[in-house]
Amino acid sequence: MKSQVVTFLINCPDQKGLVAKITNFFYDKGFNILSCQQYVNSIENSYFMRVRLNADGTIISKDQLENSFLELADPLHFSWSVHYGDKKQNVALMVSHTSHNLYDLLERFREGRLDCNVKMIISNHNKLRHIAEMFDVPFYYLPITKETKEEQEGQIIQLLDSNNIDLVIMARYMQILSSRFINHYPQRIINIHHSFLPAFQGANPYRKAYERGVKLIGATAHYATEDLDEGPIIEQDVKPVTHESTPQTLKIIGADIEKLVLARAVKNHLNHQIIVSGNRAIVFPEAGE
Amino acid sequence: MKSQVVTFLINCPDQKGLVAKITNFFYDKGFNILSCQQYVNSIENSYFMRVRLNADGTIISKDQLENSFLELADPLHFSWSVHYGDKKQNVALMVSHTSHNLYDLLERFREGRLDCNVKMIISNHNKLRHIAEMFDVPFYYLPITKETKEEQEGQIIQLLDSNNIDLVIMARYMQILSSRFINHYPQRIINIHHSFLPAFQGANPYRKAYERGVKLIGATAHYATEDLDEGPIIEQDVKPVTHESTPQTLKIIGADIEKLVLARAVKNHLNHQIIVSGNRAIVFPEAGE
Amino acid sequence: MKSQVVTFLINCPDQKGLVAKITNFFYDKGFNILSCQQYVNSIENSYFMRVRLNADGTIISKDQLENSFLELADPLHFSWSVHYGDKKQNVALMVSHTSHNLYDLLERFREGRLDCNVKMIISNHNKLRHIAEMFDVPFYYLPITKETKEEQEGQIIQLLDSNNIDLVIMARYMQILSSRFINHYPQRIINIHHSFLPAFQGANPYRKAYERGVKLIGATAHYATEDLDEGPIIEQDVKPVTHESTPQTLKIIGADIEKLVLARAVKNHLNHQIIVSGNRAIVFPEAGE
Amino acid sequence: MKSQVVTFLINCPDQKGLVAKITNFFYDKGFNILSCQQYVNSIENSYFMRVRLNADGTIISKDQLENSFLELADPLHFSWSVHYGDKKQNVALMVSHTSHNLYDLLERFREGRLDCNVKMIISNHNKLRHIAEMFDVPFYYLPITKETKEEQEGQIIQLLDSNNIDLVIMARYMQILSSRFINHYPQRIINIHHSFLPAFQGANPYRKAYERGVKLIGATAHYATEDLDEGPIIEQDVKPVTHESTPQTLKIIGADIEKLVLARAVKNHLNHQIIVSGNRAIVFPEAGE
Repeated sequence: MKSQVVTFLINCPDQKGLVAKITNFFYDKGFNILSCQQYVNSIENSYFMRVRLNADGTIISKDQLENSFLELADPLHFSWSVHYGDKKQNVALMVSHTSHNLYDLLERFREGRLDCNVKMIISNHNKLRHIAEMFDVPFYYLPITKETKEEQEGQIIQLLDSNNIDLVIMARYMQILSSRFINHYPQRIINIHHSFLPAFQGANPYRKAYERGVKLIGATAHYATEDLDEGPIIEQDVKPVTHESTPQTLKIIGADIEKLVLARAVKNHLNHQIIVSGNRAIVFPEAGE
Repeated sequence: MKSQVVTFLINCPDQKGLVAKITNFFYDKGFNILSCQQYVNSIENSYFMRVRLNADGTIISKDQLENSFLELADPLHFSWSVHYGDKKQNVALMVSHTSHNLYDLLERFREGRLDCNVKMIISNHNKLRHIAEMFDVPFYYLPITKETKEEQEGQIIQLLDSNNIDLVIMARYMQILSSRFINHYPQRIINIHHSFLPAFQGANPYRKAYERGVKLIGATAHYATEDLDEGPIIEQDVKPVTHESTPQTLKIIGADIEKLVLARAVKNHLNHQIIVSGNRAIVFPEAGE
Repeated sequence: MKSQVVTFLINCPDQKGLVAKITNFFYDKGFNILSCQQYVNSIENSYFMRVRLNADGTIISKDQLENSFLELADPLHFSWSVHYGDKKQNVALMVSHTSHNLYDLLERFREGRLDCNVKMIISNHNKLRHIAEMFDVPFYYLPITKETKEEQEGQIIQLLDSNNIDLVIMARYMQILSSRFINHYPQRIINIHHSFLPAFQGANPYRKAYERGVKLIGATAHYATEDLDEGPIIEQDVKPVTHESTPQTLKIIGADIEKLVLARAVKNHLNHQIIVSGNRAIVFPEAGE
Repeated sequence: MKSQVVTFLINCPDQKGLVAKITNFFYDKGFNILSCQQYVNSIENSYFMRVRLNADGTIISKDQLENSFLELADPLHFSWSVHYGDKKQNVALMVSHTSHNLYDLLERFREGRLDCNVKMIISNHNKLRHIAEMFDVPFYYLPITKETKEEQEGQIIQLLDSNNIDLVIMARYMQILSSRFINHYPQRIINIHHSFLPAFQGANPYRKAYERGVKLIGATAHYATEDLDEGPIIEQDVKPVTHESTPQTLKIIGADIEKLVLARAVKNHLNHQIIVSGNRAIVFPEAGE
């Protein structure tokens, strides 16, 4: 295997000796263990591990590595995945008519601060095409009506699949995705919700926040699931506000939080820092985030 | 009037010239205006003002001041209140078996950082009596059962009224107060809820926060109203948490937030910084909070 | 005067009756007072006020307003300025080779979230020209050596003056400006420093932060003065970091703080929220920031 | 060994296979590894590990464990320490005349939220004796003058040593300790400094913060070293402030930050989460802090 970082994500029933067995396995295969993070959920008696390896100097192939690992993984009932640093992930952005998240993500991609290929921007409006053109990213305008929803989603799925998209980012795409769509990309669609979930689920959270007179507003990035705004939470943040805020100024203040929260969530996903367990996202920290 | 700070809180329909008329009034009466804070709610077309005056050198009496002010206030449809610095407010604390908010408030009172008299601690358990004794505050143990709830609340009301209590602080009092009780002390009961409202209303918020996998936990101080956990929010704060938190550790982390949030809300109330409008609390900032 | 917001910034020795006199003046001239914020510095016995007026329906001209105001201002020893909403400010950005602040500010200007004209970008490197072109803003490449510094600064001054630039933003311009340059634009040059001032003044703050093992890193926006990194602080923010951060990852984490801090400082300046007093910047808050 | 948590802290030159070798060692001895945290400093090529073990069911004695571990540790050049959960640490508090940190720590100890024995309070003033009495902790009043400093410190050292004190907490003890004293308790004295270090080192940080017009104030907990305010930083936090703050109100706002920062640092130390490397404190996180 050529020099690269290899990341394993592992989830299994808790038991004695796991960390020793796993780290031994990689040591025996000649890897240098860059980091090894674990989390024990003692309420559910389950174990989670993220191991980052340096493949430098190993002579094993990817296939050999995975086949050998199966011999360790199967008797211990691992759910696991492996991710190779030499494979760059393909990303699609979905937007409607709000631009701040789109600008922010494109700037990060362009400046090399998010490690992926942005292959396309898909929108149900034509309004943000000029931004796609500024950043030289293909823009697909696929309008939607109640009648054409199924057809439009079919077109999107075809676009995503034919471009081998690994991650879909709903950067303020203001349409509810069908279960069919969601289930086609499990844990591969990240959505930004403009409130601190589970407060103010559904539409118009800034209006509701104003009416409730909250003293903090927030944003939440989560994996999209069939239950709207109920998916595993990846990242959240808030900012203090005062009684002076109107729904309109809350929206402006919120935009900066939404940008940071979505960007961090995307980075965590692209870095393979996340294991989903039920409705909870285990997010291993990484320095330099 | 002897030397003291006098605070007016005013709420009225918005109209031209309010700040000039009000500040003129106090200037003519010989007051020095220490601060004058306003908030215009242009959605509801209403106006809010907090004026702090230095009475030093004035010769007007309290009665004369209030009678004169009525001549300004009535034609402009003011709702208003006035608060004199020479009258210290009487406070009652209500607790059950959690001690952190109680310690924190008593320490602040004792060290002179909350300007009031703590007249009593009321509890439905006997567990925290030793803390009352440490701080030399009368402790009333009034146990409660489903059958005695009405009677117990009657005893509390009698205690509060006979001691001229101005403010009731529910410092983790784990009983739901009846509407009769709540309405006896409108905007004079402050409650601390151990989550970021309106997320996780009702019981066991830390358990629910764990199950939802949130990345921030918080606390909310609000005025008690008939609708549980729906009263005007005075103060909120949050702290980042990770997937590693259990309901138990969330409780420990949350305790520090609860202490700060309740203490700030109480300080804002005692300083006459708050005007309640519908379900929203207008909280004017004050340096040195 | 046509319909617009007019903002007065006033600084004078403290004395009785100021708020009444000032608000009366504007009320008499037919203005609606949108907000009136004051700050009394009792240590230095000085008074600061920011008044925002709605000119709607007034018949007074700008000249008449200013001449009348002088009659109030002179006997009370006001330092004051007035700013009319119908005059959009001209802004110049100065950069070197770091792009994150530039992208962020251009996005905000483009999306209408910073009320000004970005007239030009000036750089001592050619590296960021493509960003200027993406956003259609003139780019001036003015390289600098020790020998040509005086000449280069002369060229910049000429560019700024001939374009009537009101505000210069050093968005990571990595050159020390001469006193001559600084004094040509007093309180009109905003700089972003990549640390929490006064910690880590001077060069390489992220390196120093790593070596000191700090647990928070920050950014500071301030007016440029002759003493490097000593000018009045407008805005600061920090983010928690851990021992795992390297100088390189601190730089990445810091970039997001720098973007927010500089954008807020620029907004505060453009909104006329700031009065500088000695080395302290009085920054009046504004909802919707 | 009876059922308890055993914590190893290890620091050594980085090399391949460390995590496998160490976890194997403990697995072979029959321990369950509760958590295993590592940090690689690639700038200095050094490796840090914190391992928490459950001794439940092991038959090895403490001596046997430590002797066996030496065989692993010596060839790999470990600096290491081991800490047993069945040994409660003894703590001494040093104070002068400021009470907030003292109240806060005593409340936490009393309520079982800091796992240690508070054996004594030492002060150069008699002012806080009543708090010691409230919490039933021995209070030693040891006044100090320039002439008696050496003698007074000698008395303190004798008190600490004869009571087997493991940790000294300077909870706002306003005297500079001599090098002799500091070096007697290396990495066993924690100090709270009332600013965000390295800003505003030395005396009167709130005064200096006011004069500099900062928009955030903070607190820093660090190990005491010979160079005043230069020791390894354990914990820091800040809070936003405005131009309205005076040195006096900054002090009040700061008190709440100081309480949280010192309490967290003490908890991190008591939980054996810290390894000091040069002037940097490696602080491993722990859920439930």
